[in-house]
Amino acid sequence: MTKPALTALAQTLPASVPFVGPEAQERQMGHPFKARLGANESAFGPSPKAIAAMQKAAAEVWMYGDAESHDLRHALATHHGIAAENIMVGEGIDGLLGPLVRLYAGPGDAVVTSAGAYPTFNYHVAGFGGALHTVPFKENCEDPDALLAKAATVGAKLIYISNPDNPMGSWHNAEVMQEMIDRLPPGCLLVLDEAYIDLAPDGTAPPIDPDAPNVIRMRTFSKAHGMAGARVGYAIGSRDVISGFNKVRNHFGMCRISQQGALAALQDTEWLAHIQNEVAKARQKIKEIARQNGLTPLPSATNFVTIDCGRDGDFARAVLAALVGEGIFVRMPFVAPQDRCIRVSCGPDPQIEAFAQALPRALAQAHEKLG
Amino acid sequence: MTKPALTALAQTLPASVPFVGPEAQERQMGHPFKARLGANESAFGPSPKAIAAMQKAAAEVWMYGDAESHDLRHALATHHGIAAENIMVGEGIDGLLGPLVRLYAGPGDAVVTSAGAYPTFNYHVAGFGGALHTVPFKENCEDPDALLAKAATVGAKLIYISNPDNPMGSWHNAEVMQEMIDRLPPGCLLVLDEAYIDLAPDGTAPPIDPDAPNVIRMRTFSKAHGMAGARVGYAIGSRDVISGFNKVRNHFGMCRISQQGALAALQDTEWLAHIQNEVAKARQKIKEIARQNGLTPLPSATNFVTIDCGRDGDFARAVLAALVGEGIFVRMPFVAPQDRCIRVSCGPDPQIEAFAQALPRALAQAHEKLG
Repeated sequence: MTKPALTALAQTLPASVPFVGPEAQERQMGHPFKARLGANESAFGPSPKAIAAMQKAAAEVWMYGDAESHDLRHALATHHGIAAENIMVGEGIDGLLGPLVRLYAGPGDAVVTSAGAYPTFNYHVAGFGGALHTVPFKENCEDPDALLAKAATVGAKLIYISNPDNPMGSWHNAEVMQEMIDRLPPGCLLVLDEAYIDLAPDGTAPPIDPDAPNVIRMRTFSKAHGMAGARVGYAIGSRDVISGFNKVRNHFGMCRISQQGALAALQDTEWLAHIQNEVAKARQKIKEIARQNGLTPLPSATNFVTIDCGRDGDFARAVLAALVGEGIFVRMPFVAPQDRCIRVSCGPDPQIEAFAQALPRALAQAHEKLG
Repeated sequence: MTKPALTALAQTLPASVPFVGPEAQERQMGHPFKARLGANESAFGPSPKAIAAMQKAAAEVWMYGDAESHDLRHALATHHGIAAENIMVGEGIDGLLGPLVRLYAGPGDAVVTSAGAYPTFNYHVAGFGGALHTVPFKENCEDPDALLAKAATVGAKLIYISNPDNPMGSWHNAEVMQEMIDRLPPGCLLVLDEAYIDLAPDGTAPPIDPDAPNVIRMRTFSKAHGMAGARVGYAIGSRDVISGFNKVRNHFGMCRISQQGALAALQDTEWLAHIQNEVAKARQKIKEIARQNGLTPLPSATNFVTIDCGRDGDFARAVLAALVGEGIFVRMPFVAPQDRCIRVSCGPDPQIEAFAQALPRALAQAHEKLG
């Protein structure tokens, strides 16, 4: 029997995963992590009101979710002072990036990002046959000038940038981002990933212009709202760009429980303020722990702190491996020179304390291994 | 400013939705439905143990779901007596059909289905540029011989068939399906959608052969398990076919709450037996209601009953519109000659009773309109 053949494109793709999940690591280790500080999840948890809404919705889960996410979309529209037609809700930002890439970047089309930026975006570009072009980070920041220049050179369909940045925690202010939007090459769509914007200083997000035809902004309930496992993200863009999703999206893809949870989370502004405060405190603690160990914490506008381990990638990888061996789930940038760093998510005191206790031992192990 | 341009393929696609959801209809009507019997959801609800598991998981939703759905996949493997490597968990069957089509049917590739079978499958084929070929139903059943013959003629990459069938509720026995598998043209993959298999008579599903290279079977927690809104489906196939999903899937796409709910639902075999019994009783009631109104219910191996209204599509559409006007959410087949029918989902007595009360009035309205 002749086996079914994958498409020519699919044959070229590796079976891969952009990130190995902590559960997979735990299964491999044979024991659970003591602290889960690697995926920039919010261990402070979601709003109690969101939890209550999800618990109520669990009994009603025999119903498909609303294919239009009407109530959530309209609440978001009110929140942002725009029309619901400027918003598309999807299964996390990941669940929106795939269809977006599919809509704009076909086989051979040029796409520009920073070397070491979000791997899942790159995975989607490769998956649809796009040609990925990268520019380096500049002093721990994504570099709008370099991204724009590269996009103009290669005729990019899409530019990806995250602001604040993951994995470095850095950020540009709103004026820099607005200037980037204003200077986009003709026909190029800017994918502005603002997953961490709720945790950034005021003045980081440029004003939302719902009529801007050349920028789509990505937001999520996974970070500040503490609902990573619920898979709720949304895109803000022009009506043209937003309605494009209806050509290819999985219309009934949203979990009904998650829709209800996100709606409640959005309305609980007190909890968001509480989380912003907790994250600010945790950032300070992580920075102090880093300094106490002779390392250099980078400024952060996110719910994580990226720590410069002061040597090369091999050293940081050894520190990371030792931390994981100590039961501390953390991650690190994949690409040099950012890979001299490790990345530690904010969390409640017991988790941060576990990191504090493990870090000196991990550094000692890394020094022992590499001298 | 030159607007970003969609890919050539995306430009050809309409912004569409395979199904209008009941919430959208309710918003348009300005009032809620009295009975929700249109989407083959299980208004009997999910297992109380599944609800409890989801409620517990709601507080833990700050964590991403396990990207491998390890526990659920292994429980399913035990349940079916196969290896976890033969199973892929996804965001409902819809969430698996998209990537599957993407992997096997590129632009221009031939795909075969029945005229009037699952529209969401067709939507995905169109979305990836495939060329859809259809054969007619034969006496209310999908026609394996015709599907195979068409596939051989057009060199199909994929054949889609649902057994039991939606929207007609009909089914073939295991021997017929096994013969279809055995007679597939070389290089053709059979997509065997068994969404309703838990509600079919014993002897409907052919034995699962995990090494069969040319069939992928789709199962779901949306129907008998009453978890449509949770978005959990799974595919059973050869290791080759299953591992292909890892080339393109959204690895962290599963809702953590849904993963936990499905695991609990799978283990609650008593609830499944209870639902099978409730569905059998509801099918009888719906059939009796149809007969009392001079209509012909079709045999059903699903959680719905398709009712032949005895005239043409215009008449059935008038009956459907009148039912919707009476506050009864039902749907009907899209394509002639199946569109002489309406399709009524099983549900608890109050919902079936609401349908029973509305049907005579709806028929009267349809007769008044069309004579």
